Amino acid sequence: MNFEPRATRNDITGAPSNPDVFSYGIETHEAYKKKALTSDIFEEQRKVQEADLVIFQFPLYWFSVPAILKGWMDRVLCRGFAFDIPGFYDSGFLKGKLALLSLTTGGTAEMYTKDGVSGDFRYFLWPLQHGTLHFCGFKVLAPQISFGLDVSSEEERKVMLASWAQRLKSIWKEEPIHCTPPWYFQE
Amino acid sequence: MNFEPRATRNDITGAPSNPDVFSYGIETHEAYKKKALTSDIFEEQRKVQEADLVIFQFPLYWFSVPAILKGWMDRVLCRGFAFDIPGFYDSGFLKGKLALLSLTTGGTAEMYTKDGVSGDFRYFLWPLQHGTLHFCGFKVLAPQISFGLDVSSEEERKVMLASWAQRLKSIWKEEPIHCTPPWYFQE
Repeated sequence: MNFEPRATRNDITGAPSNPDVFSYGIETHEAYKKKALTSDIFEEQRKVQEADLVIFQFPLYWFSVPAILKGWMDRVLCRGFAFDIPGFYDSGFLKGKLALLSLTTGGTAEMYTKDGVSGDFRYFLWPLQHGTLHFCGFKVLAPQISFGLDVSSEEERKVMLASWAQRLKSIWKEEPIHCTPPWYFQE
Repeated sequence: MNFEPRATRNDITGAPSNPDVFSYGIETHEAYKKKALTSDIFEEQRKVQEADLVIFQFPLYWFSVPAILKGWMDRVLCRGFAFDIPGFYDSGFLKGKLALLSLTTGGTAEMYTKDGVSGDFRYFLWPLQHGTLHFCGFKVLAPQISFGLDVSSEEERKVMLASWAQRLKSIWKEEPIHCTPPWYFQE
């Protein structure tokens, strides 16, 4: 899948509601209501709508998702579909659904501790888990982080995979995290 | 400019160093050393190399940069050019340069306070200012944030612009922020 990450006026079909000033947020909101978003966005929204749990699997790039996945968030989670104003955080339109970030890192777990060079891993999860997923109403399950892939052995990687497989067996019994500042910024 | 945000094997020219397993980080590092990255990446790296101060101007999308700019970070700030291991944070290869995030938000400043629904705006700056810019060695100037564009009047926008223009007059006299956890997570 070679998903288009760039949010542009090509994301709406037909004429914009304001021909003078193109506001991406306003125009995609209007297009969503008129079913005039491009088909690749519509198709992804359909998948999200059908899901009970959305797992985002990605390698950590610059302490966030790679651009192709950022573009999925920018384009798919549009106003009207995922939230409205008001209608966000606990009132987000995807409430009732679960989301989980499953990520791999190059850096070791020691780097991502409170006193490590990169700071607690929870710090960089804030914009994704709270600012994006929680904003849309998702309840967020604890992240699955496979640290230090750049320096791990084949055997260590197998252990990480087995641990993830084991967790998935009982994933439906898990309770969401409390997606509020203490989870991220306090001990 | 319609910059390609997706990090793919098309980013290297010629044969990969490991024909069996394609690791984007390893292959682009090797390609950088052999001057075998694609021309769009090379051209952006040349601009960064010539700059004393890089200003990133963007609308906040999901508490981060839009995907097109995330892709610029993913592809342009590659190992060998922007950092090495070791050779990051204060030893990052872009040390001696300044960077500044200038962003516009839809939400109001009140939403981005410690007790606001979105949390302190500094929280979402962590992955960008510390995890990306500081990682590459940049010293970071205080962000320029124009809040609440969705609800601002023409007059209020003019005031924001004038304030930014005024700041730029003496930007070279500014001291960088301390890009460490207290700036982000403590009062």
